[in-house]
Amino acid sequence: MSRTIGILHPGAMGVSVAASAKNSGNTVYWAGEGRSATTHQRAEDVGLVDAGSLADLCQQCEVILSVCPPAAAEQVAQDVIATEFSGLYLDANAIAPQRAERIGQAMAEAGITFVDGGIIGGPAWEPGRTWLYLSGQSAPEIAACFASGPLETSIVSEQIGQASALKMVFAAYSKGTTALLAAIVATAESLGVREALNAQWSRGGSTFAEETEQRVRRVTAKAWRFEGEMHEIAATLAGAGLPDGFHLAAAEVYSRMADFKDAPETPELAAVLQALLESD
Amino acid sequence: MSRTIGILHPGAMGVSVAASAKNSGNTVYWAGEGRSATTHQRAEDVGLVDAGSLADLCQQCEVILSVCPPAAAEQVAQDVIATEFSGLYLDANAIAPQRAERIGQAMAEAGITFVDGGIIGGPAWEPGRTWLYLSGQSAPEIAACFASGPLETSIVSEQIGQASALKMVFAAYSKGTTALLAAIVATAESLGVREALNAQWSRGGSTFAEETEQRVRRVTAKAWRFEGEMHEIAATLAGAGLPDGFHLAAAEVYSRMADFKDAPETPELAAVLQALLESD
Repeated sequence: MSRTIGILHPGAMGVSVAASAKNSGNTVYWAGEGRSATTHQRAEDVGLVDAGSLADLCQQCEVILSVCPPAAAEQVAQDVIATEFSGLYLDANAIAPQRAERIGQAMAEAGITFVDGGIIGGPAWEPGRTWLYLSGQSAPEIAACFASGPLETSIVSEQIGQASALKMVFAAYSKGTTALLAAIVATAESLGVREALNAQWSRGGSTFAEETEQRVRRVTAKAWRFEGEMHEIAATLAGAGLPDGFHLAAAEVYSRMADFKDAPETPELAAVLQALLESD
Repeated sequence: MSRTIGILHPGAMGVSVAASAKNSGNTVYWAGEGRSATTHQRAEDVGLVDAGSLADLCQQCEVILSVCPPAAAEQVAQDVIATEFSGLYLDANAIAPQRAERIGQAMAEAGITFVDGGIIGGPAWEPGRTWLYLSGQSAPEIAACFASGPLETSIVSEQIGQASALKMVFAAYSKGTTALLAAIVATAESLGVREALNAQWSRGGSTFAEETEQRVRRVTAKAWRFEGEMHEIAATLAGAGLPDGFHLAAAEVYSRMADFKDAPETPELAAVLQALLESD
């Protein structure tokens, strides 16, 4: 069954989600009004239809997909409610489950059918690499929009918040440990024992030291948007009665790397450590 | 060259350090006064000579090795200074480098030659498994005490504090991630997504989910003494200008597991999660 689907917004991840919806036989729209030339190009490249304004998009579409930075998720949802949209809305963002529940509540009061989502993996251009987890009574309707992939879908439960919870606990380890490693390597550098640490990490032929260096250097390009996600994860752990300090510290680490956002190439480790050791 | 060496104290790690010193041709003493029957048995099993009191031990020995919980390290050092010991002293404890420097300063003022140390690995009963890292001008003299192993030694530098720094940054990852995983699994349990998280962690045939469960269950026996070490690591990161929140959170996680210290066997995961989720 072909549906009309609107994507908010076609960033690097969002455009891949839109492409999977299109690949599954749907017509996919976006709201080009006021967006950058880069975003227009990205949307055109996968054949999205420009509906114009957000209001136009919401009038045109039966389904709206929200894929945006975590800090923007509630505002995007409020903006959609304000258009008097009355279809099916997916929040696929990296937000704490209590925030997903709050958005779901506001959507229900506005007569919008809400599905909670969380994406694990990078932009979805290949099968078996990226999963959209879904929860809520209407999760199967969203899953049907992506039936032909390459984005994979998996329904967690009927309970709003559980898809977000899964995303949070998964990223809590992957992104939490990258931040921890960055803090450790910077501390070792500051205390003059970075080479000794690498030697210990390399015992028995382990490649952990090299992998860590690559991981710390490569995360710099994405660090600017991980700070907000770390705050969501901290709130998730706190909501469950566990300490939020791991991810508040990770947020601080990522904030110190945020200026690498527009770096033309992956920075040398020395430059990353300098940014981490310069306190503000 | 055979030396007279005193060990403070022959716990699970300390007795293995003492055994390596003895294996290297030295006579190794301990201070049995006021210690438990278990500790007496452990010391006897490896042939340590009971010198009696701490004062007797310090009078008898040219070298004193301190292997104790981090929170006790400064008190043990002060107690040795009070005996008017004037030989060579190794602090091999998991303490922040600034604390090692402070102990070294007090030792120097008391006319005691100080070497900083840090042990990476479990009790040293096999070669190539456990490293005693050393720093300070007299580090080679300590290394010579263990020439025949199985405890391995490695000299980091002549600078007091660097052996401790290396121990701290190494344990920051190994013990920090175990605590993080415990917090994540407990959060997933609380939010009803633990099975879904395990399924995601098991994609592609990965054994990460099972390994995590084993790691979280097995650490419970040692958690009671990791809380203090996490505070030392937090101080180490803070001293270098990095966030201390990762390891303050880890200290809280380990404190919630501390009651498993005397458990007769490794607890089931359900019992560990219950302890983590019961806030005090």
